[in-house]
Amino acid sequence: MTEYSFNRFSAGVWMFGRFVDRYAADGYGPEVSITDAIRTAASVGGIEALDLNYPFWGPGEPSVADVRALLEETGMRTLAITPEIYTQTFRAGAFTNPDATVRKQAIDLIARATEVAYELGADYMKIWPGQDGFDYPLQADPRRLWELSVDAMQQIAGPHPDLPFAIEYKPKEPRTHMFFSDAASTLLAIEDIGLDNVGVLLDFGHSLYGGESPAAAAELCLARRRLIDVDLNDNFRGWDDDLAVGSVHLLETLEFLLTLKRAGWDKPWKLDQFPFREDPVEAARASIRMLRALLRLLDRLDLDELDAARERQDALGAQRLAYDLLLGEFAAAE
Amino acid sequence: MTEYSFNRFSAGVWMFGRFVDRYAADGYGPEVSITDAIRTAASVGGIEALDLNYPFWGPGEPSVADVRALLEETGMRTLAITPEIYTQTFRAGAFTNPDATVRKQAIDLIARATEVAYELGADYMKIWPGQDGFDYPLQADPRRLWELSVDAMQQIAGPHPDLPFAIEYKPKEPRTHMFFSDAASTLLAIEDIGLDNVGVLLDFGHSLYGGESPAAAAELCLARRRLIDVDLNDNFRGWDDDLAVGSVHLLETLEFLLTLKRAGWDKPWKLDQFPFREDPVEAARASIRMLRALLRLLDRLDLDELDAARERQDALGAQRLAYDLLLGEFAAAE
Amino acid sequence: MTEYSFNRFSAGVWMFGRFVDRYAADGYGPEVSITDAIRTAASVGGIEALDLNYPFWGPGEPSVADVRALLEETGMRTLAITPEIYTQTFRAGAFTNPDATVRKQAIDLIARATEVAYELGADYMKIWPGQDGFDYPLQADPRRLWELSVDAMQQIAGPHPDLPFAIEYKPKEPRTHMFFSDAASTLLAIEDIGLDNVGVLLDFGHSLYGGESPAAAAELCLARRRLIDVDLNDNFRGWDDDLAVGSVHLLETLEFLLTLKRAGWDKPWKLDQFPFREDPVEAARASIRMLRALLRLLDRLDLDELDAARERQDALGAQRLAYDLLLGEFAAAE
Amino acid sequence: MTEYSFNRFSAGVWMFGRFVDRYAADGYGPEVSITDAIRTAASVGGIEALDLNYPFWGPGEPSVADVRALLEETGMRTLAITPEIYTQTFRAGAFTNPDATVRKQAIDLIARATEVAYELGADYMKIWPGQDGFDYPLQADPRRLWELSVDAMQQIAGPHPDLPFAIEYKPKEPRTHMFFSDAASTLLAIEDIGLDNVGVLLDFGHSLYGGESPAAAAELCLARRRLIDVDLNDNFRGWDDDLAVGSVHLLETLEFLLTLKRAGWDKPWKLDQFPFREDPVEAARASIRMLRALLRLLDRLDLDELDAARERQDALGAQRLAYDLLLGEFAAAE
Repeated sequence: MTEYSFNRFSAGVWMFGRFVDRYAADGYGPEVSITDAIRTAASVGGIEALDLNYPFWGPGEPSVADVRALLEETGMRTLAITPEIYTQTFRAGAFTNPDATVRKQAIDLIARATEVAYELGADYMKIWPGQDGFDYPLQADPRRLWELSVDAMQQIAGPHPDLPFAIEYKPKEPRTHMFFSDAASTLLAIEDIGLDNVGVLLDFGHSLYGGESPAAAAELCLARRRLIDVDLNDNFRGWDDDLAVGSVHLLETLEFLLTLKRAGWDKPWKLDQFPFREDPVEAARASIRMLRALLRLLDRLDLDELDAARERQDALGAQRLAYDLLLGEFAAAE
Repeated sequence: MTEYSFNRFSAGVWMFGRFVDRYAADGYGPEVSITDAIRTAASVGGIEALDLNYPFWGPGEPSVADVRALLEETGMRTLAITPEIYTQTFRAGAFTNPDATVRKQAIDLIARATEVAYELGADYMKIWPGQDGFDYPLQADPRRLWELSVDAMQQIAGPHPDLPFAIEYKPKEPRTHMFFSDAASTLLAIEDIGLDNVGVLLDFGHSLYGGESPAAAAELCLARRRLIDVDLNDNFRGWDDDLAVGSVHLLETLEFLLTLKRAGWDKPWKLDQFPFREDPVEAARASIRMLRALLRLLDRLDLDELDAARERQDALGAQRLAYDLLLGEFAAAE
Repeated sequence: MTEYSFNRFSAGVWMFGRFVDRYAADGYGPEVSITDAIRTAASVGGIEALDLNYPFWGPGEPSVADVRALLEETGMRTLAITPEIYTQTFRAGAFTNPDATVRKQAIDLIARATEVAYELGADYMKIWPGQDGFDYPLQADPRRLWELSVDAMQQIAGPHPDLPFAIEYKPKEPRTHMFFSDAASTLLAIEDIGLDNVGVLLDFGHSLYGGESPAAAAELCLARRRLIDVDLNDNFRGWDDDLAVGSVHLLETLEFLLTLKRAGWDKPWKLDQFPFREDPVEAARASIRMLRALLRLLDRLDLDELDAARERQDALGAQRLAYDLLLGEFAAAE
Repeated sequence: MTEYSFNRFSAGVWMFGRFVDRYAADGYGPEVSITDAIRTAASVGGIEALDLNYPFWGPGEPSVADVRALLEETGMRTLAITPEIYTQTFRAGAFTNPDATVRKQAIDLIARATEVAYELGADYMKIWPGQDGFDYPLQADPRRLWELSVDAMQQIAGPHPDLPFAIEYKPKEPRTHMFFSDAASTLLAIEDIGLDNVGVLLDFGHSLYGGESPAAAAELCLARRRLIDVDLNDNFRGWDDDLAVGSVHLLETLEFLLTLKRAGWDKPWKLDQFPFREDPVEAARASIRMLRALLRLLDRLDLDELDAARERQDALGAQRLAYDLLLGEFAAAE
């Protein structure tokens, strides 16, 4: 197993950007360019790499050179490029848009973004076709959505066998039913795509509110050697709230980290939050603090005892091992 | 009971506006001013009154006189005014904002909006404090949120005893936990507010995805004489999808209409949809067509038989009465 | 495509049995033997085949010969055998029980049930390992559950290549997290099982409350030629309520039937309900009446127009085609 | 504020009984009489009082004298009596049963149970009309359910002004829609009941999976001086899983305890779990251990700082106060 680190973090740059929603259509704060957001990310401390949206958002039109220079200046690197195939142009879908012209635009945008990924030395391309799926019963033929999605992934990832393409699945939002909706169906689609460089980006929160056990979903992707990266956050199991790590589900976060640690995970821990009303730097620091604490706790957890409890499927015993560490000083005087 | 009409409809003007969300931050279409939206609403056919956001959104800065003139020209009237107390300024809350200055801004904005309501002859003020509530466990003191919300409602509605103020409740979005979250707790708060002119706007979809039976929630508000208006739409019980009326829950929509009809409801049926990817005129027409059909079906439903079935709590019998009408020609050859 | 029939139905025999739950532990009615339940099923009219639990429940100990004679007498046949691997013995799991002895008992019980399936000429074995999975975070190692489940399926289905074994997936209940939880992960497990005679039993309600689109889940199983049978019922998307067909989700039921019809589905339509407080005969008849009506409606639906609307992903257009048929006489006077 | 104790616990005796559900209809273990269950409860250590079902379940028919003697012997007392108005007789409802004869049976059973409560010196009567509500759209008239429920509560609690009657609300199970479904609507019904001795039993898990914030629901009941007792457990927000305290939602459990502590709560902390597959003694001990640890943690929490953070609605700040205590030793080396 590779050396394990408490000090390696990455983030989606959007969490330092500006949020809007259908109510605060004037945004949850002032406009923020991607270069501003990169600087903010750097100020967190501990973030070594960023997942960058492409095209780079303004105001101003930051160039690839601008971004590269700024990353160098701030001591960070490019983790991934996320082409924005979910904006107005693609509102009725990117890969599954009923209009072949728009589908072509999505492919072309991703092709340009892939060039940028190479230029910036990204580890992988992140593909989130957020507008693909359907909203109403009877609206779409599921076979057609499948066919279009598989075909598009082949088109974009086929020419670049040396670059991983990670599909981020999500059950809903912004569609009521998204196409790549869970780990297992994404893995089935990946079989049909038939390319070694296509895998999964597992967002802890998407998994949780989709009804999966995030740890079990991770094992499923790991077993098929298709786990490219994970996004960390938390929610209330009903929506993609993108809260700070561990703010609701402490034990399931711990279990998820344990799963990855035991699989030899050696990538920076990636934050994906939407701190609509919080300072994003503080929100990132809260997650980093939580992750460090949980990772240290894992180092102190007796894994042999845990394995023995799990072999017995002893729920209370397995939980007690974790809780004795967590609550030890409070539980002590029992 | 007042005469019952199949031909009276109203709508929230926002459903003819432009939508944005956190992904398509550039909007699901071009910018639309409120005057454009009013014209679009008029083109639907059958909409007699509009719920208007205030301030009136541009581009351009439509004046009250502009809006009045346009409503006259298009043969519609003002149903309600909805002050926008959920935009950037109020992102951390309107009534429950921790900053007293912002709370004052909310009160002031509503006061100005109330003047506009009088000028335009609105039936009621609609109050939706969309940013009030909390997002994280431990974040807020529920008693303080209650106190601030009750106090604000007293301040805004107290000076205008002749004008109804309708609180629209909603379980979540944009907060993970909204303050006015369901019918019953809103009625309890209204008791504490202690004003005769404060009541409830019951959104069918909010009720549905909040786990209520919309019909039962309506009865609760009716029993306490606090039901000011209803919003109609549909969803998948997990989020405020704001789909066309009856597109998922046909029978529960019918039950809701039945409840109102029997209570002597004589207001125009109000549409509240977010047709992100549909033509809003077609989306409104689909809902109107559905409402007319269900209302006519209700006219043909044998209410004595239904009452008898309900007195027996005979689920299959009660459903069969409705389904025999709906599916009659298909079921006939049984 | 095979000839399509409105007159072929089957059912799980348990829907004519006696229900208990953790509150009415004395049952929702008197004890009912499986032979009583078979007679009740026959009285519905239209049910040609039954899915039978094994061991056959008393009072009395009905033999295989008893059951065969009774089926002949009542003019029905055996659709499937469902071994009861979810009773007290298997409370901590059948395939995934931590105790190898209990796992062996499950395999043995299924082996005996398989013999009965042959004796009675069942179409398939239905495998629902209802107690397999976990309840608490940290309780179980997902890889171990996978391994045990795959291994058990190989053991039970491997020796009988001529007999289909249908795995019924379900997201939760009675475990908070069940092992075979959705269509896609079940298909992935089936790949690992590696046997041609193992497939999926898709329960419409399980799919719905698991967050799937049942129609899309069916297409997924059909595309991999693994759909053995479907169970029909309805619920409120939060739990396996097992209500009468179409009692909540009319359009999604129609869409599901359409999917199967177009795939050339030629099996009897199978009912799986738990009419805790209804007469089971009436509950079955309500579902049959609904299914016949929806199937006839499908016959009148212009599929070319529907296909054209779906190719455009025109939600309102596709829905209108169905609703014009359903609500036609009410909407006509528009 | 009364002295605060870490050493006072109570429990529902059913958690030491035998569970059945619709699948393991032969039970999750051997039959257990209520006297067996009382002995098991005593063996946990720390449980001072029990909520007892009535009639007392066998095998054998334990008398009131038997139970009193056993409680004395084991050093426990009667916390509450829960009349079993949700068994076969009441499957279609207790208070809201369509049959007046059955409604009378429910009232009579409760009257007998109330006598037992006096004989055993119970603190309160717990009323959970688990079969009251409805299952299907259109099935029941909500006004009629309201009227029947209010009337029944008046009948049972009216004659005993010195004995508290606590209504336990729950959103669903065993009905798809239960009548007393949430805190606020129960408080509204209590207004109509109009008796000082009727209040609320707030089950943490019911509140959680009903979409409430349990802490806010508690404040609502406290503000109206109607909180009689609380039940503690945990779940996954989708169903009444009745897991051990804190096994999923640590921080929300802490917040709930904090709310009660600050309100001067001086009752034993009451456990309500269904350890289907766990040893109930170990399951109770896990909850007690957790409660003690969280209560001690609360003693160490700087409430002035917490209040200041909540006044600012500073989510990250408020959470950090708790997490620094919980994760302190792991977070220290930051």
